[in-house]
Amino acid sequence: MKTSTKNELKITAAPGSFDCTIEREFNAPREMVFNAFADPEIVKLIGPDRLTAKMYHYDFRSGGSYRYAHIDDKGNAHTFNGCFHEVATPEHIIQTFEYENLPERGHVTLDTMMFETLPGNRTKLVIHSICRSVTDRDAMMQSGMETGLEQGYAKLDALFEKNLNL
Amino acid sequence: MKTSTKNELKITAAPGSFDCTIEREFNAPREMVFNAFADPEIVKLIGPDRLTAKMYHYDFRSGGSYRYAHIDDKGNAHTFNGCFHEVATPEHIIQTFEYENLPERGHVTLDTMMFETLPGNRTKLVIHSICRSVTDRDAMMQSGMETGLEQGYAKLDALFEKNLNL
Repeated sequence: MKTSTKNELKITAAPGSFDCTIEREFNAPREMVFNAFADPEIVKLIGPDRLTAKMYHYDFRSGGSYRYAHIDDKGNAHTFNGCFHEVATPEHIIQTFEYENLPERGHVTLDTMMFETLPGNRTKLVIHSICRSVTDRDAMMQSGMETGLEQGYAKLDALFEKNLNL
Repeated sequence: MKTSTKNELKITAAPGSFDCTIEREFNAPREMVFNAFADPEIVKLIGPDRLTAKMYHYDFRSGGSYRYAHIDDKGNAHTFNGCFHEVATPEHIIQTFEYENLPERGHVTLDTMMFETLPGNRTKLVIHSICRSVTDRDAMMQSGMETGLEQGYAKLDALFEKNLNL
């Protein structure tokens, strides 16, 4: 497997819009990438390097829900929850997402994750995320989301490379 | 109880936006209005007059889900489903919503339903609905949604009046 391919995170957000689009390619076939999001132990990897994930529940099915936290070494938890609107294996996942630590609840996003097959057993993940307002969208963009995803997806890269070389 | 108060449906949608806001007052206290949305037998009432509702499941809790259909006299079903992101009794409900009969799946909305107490034991329901695109929002506005809601909420008016006069 080529590991020289640089898989960059691309985040697109038009000014004044409610939404943003996150794109990331992986050097692994679609089923492997999709299945990573089906497995709570792998989902725990997708976060900043310096934090440890705790999974409270992860009921991965249409109509299911999830809740997990990223916890720092002082025990401070960043907690997230949502429900799975639709799990369409291995094509897409539609889910809600909320960061619980905000001053008020209700700043929820609706995220559609699409898994596209690329040539060479590679996969493109496209996440279309819609916020409840432009303000929410802009706040999310400035939340450190990019670093957390970059570090999390790098851990998936390592896991996929290991699994493909077994 | 005054029944002379005219409770009009108000739908607001800015041109070129992803969202719309639906407002409707009810001559009933907040708990009664909220509880209507907790009861699948009452939720079945909220639809066009000429259709009969069938409830497949309605698991009304944070992380639950629902699915129901409005069926005409020829057996044609209009089917809807979603998941409950958050049920915060009696203040708000955050849920997803999808009309399954569209040519493709995935045109989901994220709906926040807020129940506000008004003077005189009355309640204002404010629904903020966000679509995945302006196109989806415009299509939803032209779907007959307004008539269905008007006819459905009129049935709630009658039910609330009956319950308050018991």
